[in-house]
Amino acid sequence: MSKPAKRYLILAEGKSADPHYGKTARGVLRYSAHPTVAILDSVRAGETQDGIPVVGTVNDALCFNPTTALVGVATQGGRFPPAWRELLRSCVAKGLDVENGLHEFLSDDPELADLAARHGSELRDLRKPPAGLNVPTGENLELDAQVVLTVGSDCAIGKMTVSLELDREARERGLRSVFVPTGQTGIAIAGWGISVDAVVSDFLAGAAERLVVEGAARGDLLWVEGQGALLHPAYSGVTLGLIHGSAPHAYVLCHQAGATEIEGFLGHAIPPLSELVELHERASLTARPARVACVALNTRGLAEDEAQAAVAEAEADTGLPADDPVRFGAGRLLEAVLESVDLRTGTLQAER
Amino acid sequence: MSKPAKRYLILAEGKSADPHYGKTARGVLRYSAHPTVAILDSVRAGETQDGIPVVGTVNDALCFNPTTALVGVATQGGRFPPAWRELLRSCVAKGLDVENGLHEFLSDDPELADLAARHGSELRDLRKPPAGLNVPTGENLELDAQVVLTVGSDCAIGKMTVSLELDREARERGLRSVFVPTGQTGIAIAGWGISVDAVVSDFLAGAAERLVVEGAARGDLLWVEGQGALLHPAYSGVTLGLIHGSAPHAYVLCHQAGATEIEGFLGHAIPPLSELVELHERASLTARPARVACVALNTRGLAEDEAQAAVAEAEADTGLPADDPVRFGAGRLLEAVLESVDLRTGTLQAER
Repeated sequence: MSKPAKRYLILAEGKSADPHYGKTARGVLRYSAHPTVAILDSVRAGETQDGIPVVGTVNDALCFNPTTALVGVATQGGRFPPAWRELLRSCVAKGLDVENGLHEFLSDDPELADLAARHGSELRDLRKPPAGLNVPTGENLELDAQVVLTVGSDCAIGKMTVSLELDREARERGLRSVFVPTGQTGIAIAGWGISVDAVVSDFLAGAAERLVVEGAARGDLLWVEGQGALLHPAYSGVTLGLIHGSAPHAYVLCHQAGATEIEGFLGHAIPPLSELVELHERASLTARPARVACVALNTRGLAEDEAQAAVAEAEADTGLPADDPVRFGAGRLLEAVLESVDLRTGTLQAER
Repeated sequence: MSKPAKRYLILAEGKSADPHYGKTARGVLRYSAHPTVAILDSVRAGETQDGIPVVGTVNDALCFNPTTALVGVATQGGRFPPAWRELLRSCVAKGLDVENGLHEFLSDDPELADLAARHGSELRDLRKPPAGLNVPTGENLELDAQVVLTVGSDCAIGKMTVSLELDREARERGLRSVFVPTGQTGIAIAGWGISVDAVVSDFLAGAAERLVVEGAARGDLLWVEGQGALLHPAYSGVTLGLIHGSAPHAYVLCHQAGATEIEGFLGHAIPPLSELVELHERASLTARPARVACVALNTRGLAEDEAQAAVAEAEADTGLPADDPVRFGAGRLLEAVLESVDLRTGTLQAER
């Protein structure tokens, strides 16, 4: 008996209105091939969000016939709030699979694992590293594919979204384009990938290499989801390991328009965009020098004319094409990237 | 009954003549407070190394009365050679404790753990991360201590040694100086620390912060053992996480005189020292801008006049004081560091 097609219940208890919650939930709502049929948040039960019903209990969700509960809470450091365990038990007891993006693994919890076995539920820990990781072999520098990595001035400003929008635009233009997931939300969306922040530090670059090797088996133009930021006080190690392991040919530099400080880390200023461009280019492997091809601005919250002014300012600051691909379309940024990489496919030559 | 003072048997089977083996073994031989009484390498049984007898079997080592076998094999990625298991079983069966610096943990091996329990041996995995790691809290920016991190153009060129030599010189001058271990050899030498390369990537900076917080409880001037290199294709993530988590006030840039390429990674050129100085300064946290105070050159293998010429060349290239602290003493480099940091102790003022 084959499993029914996946239908998500997003678990967002107490958090569905929190903008940080949005990172996982909105990514899946917007980009997953699988529908979300309900959002669980007892605080807002009876409302809707993005057209999806918000329910108060797992029982109330069942009439929407979900197959899979998705844990989307993005707590700092990725620990599990203890109050959630009851909710998870209740999902599992109703036979739902659970997808979990936190550092704490459900499949390592004997009680939940036992309950899941008894109810035929599957516990999928999206951040659990695969077996057999090691340091890079150098295969990352020998791929036929062209690799484009999103980098940024901060976390949670849209690097994954920019990668997904550029991938979609490239596929619409007939390119063999692939989104390469490096974090739990990207993995939930694409159904493959490695959450590089959960890998033992020594194998970070090796994990990133494995991802581009797998990506190159799937297509010619890889959009690697970036993580963290080179000057982020908590997550920069992940960023640099991902840069060197994925060995991109070009970067797309992402920035939240108007931001001047790393969010949640007072006193950590974001340097001017032109300095960030230079820092990323200098931090590239000497064996794979890479340039920033363009700037992707997140202009959410700005009026249309303010957004256009922010784009113009970013272009003036960096001398590079800039745009907000979510708001104004990904075409201009895609063209800037295609100018920077060397795609030797007939399709691309036709495009150019 | 208290344990007898530690006496090391270094396990170096087939490797005692390998220069890479030297990183762990030589570090312990040169800097540990505990003596090494024998080195096990059946290929060279009957010889001596650095005045220490080389033996062919664990039985032959027992007449030197070791208490602790140290695994010093530094394989790439840190996996355990299967042939070593027999050797380890034999050490444990003779009641020796075992200290292991690889990523594969002995204490997780049921057979060895059981054998150790039966023979009263302790299995100490130097790379096993402590429980409860998380992201940094910001405490790293609020310490009274001054933090100096060794960074470098490559791995295994002497960053730990430079930190240890500078620490020793500073203590001899009466400063409350502390060596802060971040890798398995440093931990074996100092008896505390966290092997940051074995930590989950998301908690790298948090682990480094914990180390400087602990260091600041031990003294005023911290010499944090650096790891990897910012442009290393395999280990750069660890390097940047350590930089941002330890939040140094100053760097000592280490370099193997004459090296132009990352060892073991063909085609990865080392940029000029002046570029490396600039890269490290630009990669510093904006909330903790740090300067390179001086250059520590490893001139091993050069004749005296060549070594002096290499030092002069590094000074000309960077405009910074340079020296080989192992060969010519750590005094000049210590003075350069003390010029760069702000130690408000009476001792320091007396020195200046």
